[in-house]
Amino acid sequence: MSDISIQDFDALIKDAVERVTRELAAAPSDSEAPEADLTPAEIARLIDHTLLKPEAVESQIHTVCQEALTYGFASVCVNPTWIPLCVELLAGSDVNPCATIGFPLGAMTTASKAFEAADAIGLGATEVDMVINIGRLRDGAWEAVFQDIATVAEVAHGGGARLKVILETCLLTDEEKIAGSLLTKLAGADFVKTSTGFNKAGATLPDVRLMRATVGPDLGVKAAGGIHTAADVRRMVAAGATRIGASAGVQIMQSLAGMEPPAADSGDY
Amino acid sequence: MSDISIQDFDALIKDAVERVTRELAAAPSDSEAPEADLTPAEIARLIDHTLLKPEAVESQIHTVCQEALTYGFASVCVNPTWIPLCVELLAGSDVNPCATIGFPLGAMTTASKAFEAADAIGLGATEVDMVINIGRLRDGAWEAVFQDIATVAEVAHGGGARLKVILETCLLTDEEKIAGSLLTKLAGADFVKTSTGFNKAGATLPDVRLMRATVGPDLGVKAAGGIHTAADVRRMVAAGATRIGASAGVQIMQSLAGMEPPAADSGDY
Repeated sequence: MSDISIQDFDALIKDAVERVTRELAAAPSDSEAPEADLTPAEIARLIDHTLLKPEAVESQIHTVCQEALTYGFASVCVNPTWIPLCVELLAGSDVNPCATIGFPLGAMTTASKAFEAADAIGLGATEVDMVINIGRLRDGAWEAVFQDIATVAEVAHGGGARLKVILETCLLTDEEKIAGSLLTKLAGADFVKTSTGFNKAGATLPDVRLMRATVGPDLGVKAAGGIHTAADVRRMVAAGATRIGASAGVQIMQSLAGMEPPAADSGDY
Repeated sequence: MSDISIQDFDALIKDAVERVTRELAAAPSDSEAPEADLTPAEIARLIDHTLLKPEAVESQIHTVCQEALTYGFASVCVNPTWIPLCVELLAGSDVNPCATIGFPLGAMTTASKAFEAADAIGLGATEVDMVINIGRLRDGAWEAVFQDIATVAEVAHGGGARLKVILETCLLTDEEKIAGSLLTKLAGADFVKTSTGFNKAGATLPDVRLMRATVGPDLGVKAAGGIHTAADVRRMVAAGATRIGASAGVQIMQSLAGMEPPAADSGDY
């Protein structure tokens, strides 16, 4: 699948680290970070409405799907066991059923990630968020990390789905984040994503800038983990994010003028 | 696969809850918990030597395998991406390569858990530790939970491997823990296990007693999460555990008289 040699990966990553480090030398501090100008509807269309807790029950899946339809979120992001229910509840809308793959540790085999992605897409998922092989990335095993992503990208695109690749930035050095972002792009994924929300920290503005600088303008960048307010969303977008993963989507939308909260009784389930 | 109806599950679980609650009414407090009399070698053979952090790198897998060989642990428990390396490093010993499945959330589809188990066993894992579908268990979806376990049990036993089923007790009521333990036994698994070590709490003595009382004498019970000392091990065994999951295996063994620590330089890797 790869026609890039290991020597090429080394050189490409070295070049990217030098270029990105240079480009980001003058980045603003967090307290001076600009905010993107976005309407409430634009904010809603950026949000992957997320419920990934292992203890989530069926009634909570109904609630998040109803909320996503009410506000017009980009997707509902759930564990694969809930994809059939989400597909049913979101049918006829433009809200994407999004499944996590190899989540949240990323330490499955490539074959299992590919099977899990094919299974979720076969059940109706139109987006899949996989976790990169974090240990192999830290080992500098570029070819293994590349093949892991490229294999799932082929499965996703063959099934008409988009692939996001989670780096888990809180576990990586800047060099490893750049390598992971570059390998994600080279392997043909659609988004690079900061975090699972299950490790010690989530998205930061410097990480989103670094990922955007690495992948250039054409790939998606998803900021996820610790995003609680509309101001957080506006700053992440100004830093380069084109998708926001959040479990606080409803609170974010309710805080924006002109958006109604969902009806208190949203149905008979 | 199942010849037990949903009504049967309800009745069996109700009976087990009544019986176990009655049997455990006089259980000792933690401060009065007895300790099993075990030699250091017996303790070592109970321990699944565990490294599941997503950021684990290749050199750490070498270390845990060498430690397991040195002390004679029951298994090395790793994420599936590391199974080929563990199989190679443990070849010719009686230390089992053990892979986690659907870990740590348990919210994959049954098909993906079955594939992941078959894949790991094909690579040489002789034990697999799967996470139960926690949300469906909390929903009381007994048939779904049973089929999820039974499907993976069939894969495991077909490949000559043992299956442990993780309940993640910290997320469950006592009734749910009893239901999960009973479904694990009915579905043909070999062990019921308390915890992943990735959620808010690990094994407790009352949970181990409850699981042992539910499954009776013939099934394995694995206590995992938060087990740091030889006294912890002895108390867990007295409460009914027959396997211990721990990342502190080396510290536990070093604390025991008559056991030598591993050589400071344990090889050329």
